[in-house]
Amino acid sequence: MIEAMGCVDHPFFARSSIKALQAIPLLEEGAADALGFTDEELSLALASHNAEACHTNTVSALLARLDLSVADLQCGAQEPGDREVRMALVNSGEETTALHNNCSGKHAGFLALSKHLDAPASDYLDPDGAVQSLVRAAISDMCGMDAGSLTRGMDGCSAPTYRLPLRALGLAFARVVEPSGLEPKRRAACEQMVAAVAAHPILIAGSRGRLCTELSRVTKGRLFPKIGAEGIYAVGDRASGRALAVKIDDGGRRALHAVVVELLSRHEMIDEAEARALESWRQTELTNHAGLSVGRTEVVA
Amino acid sequence: MIEAMGCVDHPFFARSSIKALQAIPLLEEGAADALGFTDEELSLALASHNAEACHTNTVSALLARLDLSVADLQCGAQEPGDREVRMALVNSGEETTALHNNCSGKHAGFLALSKHLDAPASDYLDPDGAVQSLVRAAISDMCGMDAGSLTRGMDGCSAPTYRLPLRALGLAFARVVEPSGLEPKRRAACEQMVAAVAAHPILIAGSRGRLCTELSRVTKGRLFPKIGAEGIYAVGDRASGRALAVKIDDGGRRALHAVVVELLSRHEMIDEAEARALESWRQTELTNHAGLSVGRTEVVA
Repeated sequence: MIEAMGCVDHPFFARSSIKALQAIPLLEEGAADALGFTDEELSLALASHNAEACHTNTVSALLARLDLSVADLQCGAQEPGDREVRMALVNSGEETTALHNNCSGKHAGFLALSKHLDAPASDYLDPDGAVQSLVRAAISDMCGMDAGSLTRGMDGCSAPTYRLPLRALGLAFARVVEPSGLEPKRRAACEQMVAAVAAHPILIAGSRGRLCTELSRVTKGRLFPKIGAEGIYAVGDRASGRALAVKIDDGGRRALHAVVVELLSRHEMIDEAEARALESWRQTELTNHAGLSVGRTEVVA
Repeated sequence: MIEAMGCVDHPFFARSSIKALQAIPLLEEGAADALGFTDEELSLALASHNAEACHTNTVSALLARLDLSVADLQCGAQEPGDREVRMALVNSGEETTALHNNCSGKHAGFLALSKHLDAPASDYLDPDGAVQSLVRAAISDMCGMDAGSLTRGMDGCSAPTYRLPLRALGLAFARVVEPSGLEPKRRAACEQMVAAVAAHPILIAGSRGRLCTELSRVTKGRLFPKIGAEGIYAVGDRASGRALAVKIDDGGRRALHAVVVELLSRHEMIDEAEARALESWRQTELTNHAGLSVGRTEVVA
């Protein structure tokens, strides 16, 4: 570990930041290959998406190819995170469904793995079922932890989730972007995920207001980023093999983007030109309801 | 001061929690009387409302009586805070305007005072104009502070706002609910505001998901409550003349309601029956997108 600030050993629920770890078995077990996953579909399996058409259409098509449908998703309905998309949905009169849930791609990935393993589709979230057992093992291995010692909880999307210390999240992301020390199938899985996201930055998040998409795009896929609820962020740097893992203590998102970009800059995981392109995420002007400037957020050492 | 926890002397922007103080000149200067304010309109002048029909209709009618309109409000358009109201608005095709802004009643009150003072309506937010000078003086007096030493900022609704320490907010609320030591006109102003809110708890906030409305309703108007953005809450107790002022350090609302109800209970500002009626605000079950229970929030000593 290069540098630590604060409580890097205190475990917390990593939420969506570990989606790439949760998707490893989909690839490792040969399910993605056998089922003809495109890079777009793989990106959706790793995504916390905005429910734009590119997201829901891809997940929908994937489910159909699995002879499944929205009805098989157990993540629950969730309104699109993007305001424009949300308004369009309301105006269209279309109902909000599990497809719009930001995790629907992840769940479609679980269902694909379940099908490949010949496990009952309805059991894909069973913590001790075929799918989630593999997922738990992948998470613990990549984090350098003992699967049996992980504290489990239930995520917002109903998937099993685990408490991990920041140190472990950072280690896992470093391994994802520099997988040469991993077993061949896992190494290939990591390389494939990272390449897919680099090629499709919009698919892991969305076209508006999403730092994950911007970090990948601005760095031409060199950075492999993932946000998690409650102020979590992890970024792997393919060039250096280093990773950054951040958790905002109070769980608020307000500080998160600014801190991530500031730390990427300080640790030279982004160059000056990239830092300039990302400046609005690091130092944000605050405007009020009348559009007047009332202050700003900035990172203080 | 009965009890202090944390930084009670560190000033912060009190946001909407001081609306009652900002409304004092409206009453004290005789504007509310001269313009025939109803208790409903006075409640709206103190409100952070949900933009339900009872709110927007009252503000709209008040503006009309002043020979003014939505166009004279400088608070800016803001979507209704209540989801049902927001969805209904979108579905109706009606535009979001300054009338829906949670502060529109406060601004209508400022406009009423401006009219009474024969000041130009367009100047009602000028920090050194007739209206805001009186407002600043009322805030500083009630808080036991020197008007000249207040740090000023611009609120979300563009009104001038000031940094106050928690200690001062508590003092001001104690004076509002126990005004016997104040000058006669100010005492009458406080009594009138407190009575108006007691009679119309829905008007200061709204019918759904609003602790202010519930605290007033459950205590039959004995408590005089006001929330402020960034995790602020103040409550005056008419029975004891005591007040509680709270600020959540990280500005998050998640802890606010629970802490307020817990402290009201501990300090016997609500009795056991009232505490039971407010229990769901104090200890909240967390459910995920599928409606499954995933945890809870509770106050730990």
